[in-house]
Amino acid sequence: MNKKLLLLPGDGIGPEIIAEVRKLISWINAHTDLTIDTEEDFFGGAAIDAYGVPLRDETLEAARKSDAILMGAVGGPKWDNVDYSIRPEAGLLKIRKQLDLFANLRPAIVFDALIDASSLKPEIVKGLDILIVRELTGGVYFGEPRGIEDLGGGERRGVNTQVYTTSEIRRVGKVAFEIARKRKGKVTSCEKANVMESGKLWREEITRLHAESYSDVTLEHMYADNAAMQLCRRPSQFDVIVTDNLFGDILSDEAAMLTGSLGMLPSAALGAPGSPGLYEPVHGSAPDIAGQGIANPLATILSFAMLLKYSLDSVALGEQIEAAVQTVLAEGLRTADIMVEGCKKVTTVEMGDAVIAALKA
Amino acid sequence: MNKKLLLLPGDGIGPEIIAEVRKLISWINAHTDLTIDTEEDFFGGAAIDAYGVPLRDETLEAARKSDAILMGAVGGPKWDNVDYSIRPEAGLLKIRKQLDLFANLRPAIVFDALIDASSLKPEIVKGLDILIVRELTGGVYFGEPRGIEDLGGGERRGVNTQVYTTSEIRRVGKVAFEIARKRKGKVTSCEKANVMESGKLWREEITRLHAESYSDVTLEHMYADNAAMQLCRRPSQFDVIVTDNLFGDILSDEAAMLTGSLGMLPSAALGAPGSPGLYEPVHGSAPDIAGQGIANPLATILSFAMLLKYSLDSVALGEQIEAAVQTVLAEGLRTADIMVEGCKKVTTVEMGDAVIAALKA
Ligand SMILES: CC(C)[C@H](C(=O)O)[C@@H](O)C(=O)O
Ligand SMILES: CC(C)[C@H](C(=O)O)[C@@H](O)C(=O)O
Repeated sequence: MNKKLLLLPGDGIGPEIIAEVRKLISWINAHTDLTIDTEEDFFGGAAIDAYGVPLRDETLEAARKSDAILMGAVGGPKWDNVDYSIRPEAGLLKIRKQLDLFANLRPAIVFDALIDASSLKPEIVKGLDILIVRELTGGVYFGEPRGIEDLGGGERRGVNTQVYTTSEIRRVGKVAFEIARKRKGKVTSCEKANVMESGKLWREEITRLHAESYSDVTLEHMYADNAAMQLCRRPSQFDVIVTDNLFGDILSDEAAMLTGSLGMLPSAALGAPGSPGLYEPVHGSAPDIAGQGIANPLATILSFAMLLKYSLDSVALGEQIEAAVQTVLAEGLRTADIMVEGCKKVTTVEMGDAVIAALKA
Repeated sequence: MNKKLLLLPGDGIGPEIIAEVRKLISWINAHTDLTIDTEEDFFGGAAIDAYGVPLRDETLEAARKSDAILMGAVGGPKWDNVDYSIRPEAGLLKIRKQLDLFANLRPAIVFDALIDASSLKPEIVKGLDILIVRELTGGVYFGEPRGIEDLGGGERRGVNTQVYTTSEIRRVGKVAFEIARKRKGKVTSCEKANVMESGKLWREEITRLHAESYSDVTLEHMYADNAAMQLCRRPSQFDVIVTDNLFGDILSDEAAMLTGSLGMLPSAALGAPGSPGLYEPVHGSAPDIAGQGIANPLATILSFAMLLKYSLDSVALGEQIEAAVQTVLAEGLRTADIMVEGCKKVTTVEMGDAVIAALKA
């Protein structure tokens, strides 16, 4: 089986952590009947430096022709002052929109071995396993009209538009319900239906979809502000959370931080079945430690495991990699970001090697 | 000195907790040279039941003529299905907008005596004292166009508009900078300038205001998603947070929950100097325990203390009440919501009495 993978290492620690996945790919190509052909391109700040734009049309074309895309990390202070239209984030938004990657899957998982890294009490986060399904191609991120208008007399007006349609809500809702069926069977849908009509529509459409096709799944509605509270108070009450682009941005970051180990969390952005998915670690480009060889490659390796499972039809292989990551953690290997007394501090490269060694065993 | 106070007990536990403030007012009228004349009216669900609308024009008129307004709690499942235009929340939004209460002050404070109530580790939240200044009369809560449109063929479209002007941003920014000067001198301004033009304008205007008049205060900008993370990771890095209506709704609820004691947190909504402010506890109407006499009145009592300080020119008296609350906590008195082993469980009325006893001492 031959599959095509586009690698977009991006900025900061991106190239170092993607390099560890390259080693995994070589191992897979040598030892399994899956063959992954890779292509690589600049993205984000690196692409601004090389080509003047964060995402070239050529890159987008290569992405469309791939079975999946793996991204490292994007952005950094170096590009804080480039023009708004070509900032690194614009590249990210463009690739999401152009590939119609409407469902962002963001797991928040607490690894037993890392439970003390959480700022929450261990009894609150033990065994935590939440999946946030965030709508990724609609809402206030893309709505028109938008912009800044000069009203004269020193007065300006900034506008964005929050907009959702029935079909946009239903397709992401379906993803959430389908996944919940394979998990604990519960979906919490979050909006501010009490103050926003777009949230009211969201609630109505999710309710209707549930009644039509997913009444075996438990559905609960929760205002987004309450969800922000409940995530902090008793996160284990959640299984799958489905929410819009903006609330999803905030709630998924909060949920990620509950785990205390941002360096461990993968994510996926999926489009229609059969179209290429985009996978990336949740953490940022960490320019402060870039180039030192100490970054944690595990979130990227786990993103690659998700990629195998969701986009390359290789569920077993993905699970093997996830198990290998658990093994290296159980062995006490830690990169600097997750280091605690009594464990063994390793470099990015050593961590990647250890995962491969665990895979072989 | 005579002052006029409008009491709006509202729904659920609202009337019970406002009753405890009535006792404080009697004590003040009898023992200090401040005389507080009170008026009282229905609001929210109670007003829907009595008059068919959550906020009558007469109530609004009484509010305008007062020096301050103290609210109990609003809403409950009983009114979940009333028409959108007359739901309890509509009353809340209307009073905020009509009185131009543009600055919502929401403190998140961890009381030493209650530190174990937090789901976060004590070393993370010890001594926590954050103030969130949330813009309250603009943004996506009020922007036009808004509504749900029928597109035909079963397809609908829900729209809200996020909009901010220079003056709206500056006036709430000023409140934040002024307060920071009296605190630790640091303001963190939160938006999503990386994806929203309204956030870009927010960042630019706050930056300009800071440079013009508040360069003695430390200003930091943080994306709202990152703020949601940092609140959970290391909340003590914050002093004053200033943000828009929607982000403020979410971040202030998250911050409140960090403390673990929602039943303790007051809030204020302020307009232009000299206009009446509205004060209310952060917690909800708790219909499940309403009428049982076990609700915690301390958040309402502390809201009344804020009211004395900010709207009735009685800073010393407000501080005395705050000190009395600390005293009863130190004495080990606890309502059910904050009860722990070794403390004495008291009713709503007993807690109110204890605060008055501490005030006398
Ligand atoms: C970088 C930024 C544009 C992006 C977003 O807001 O979506 C990021 O926060 C994310 O969650 O992927
Ligand atoms: C009840 C609701 C309208 C309100 C809001 O969203 O502003 C509440 O959550 C608050 O924070 O005061």
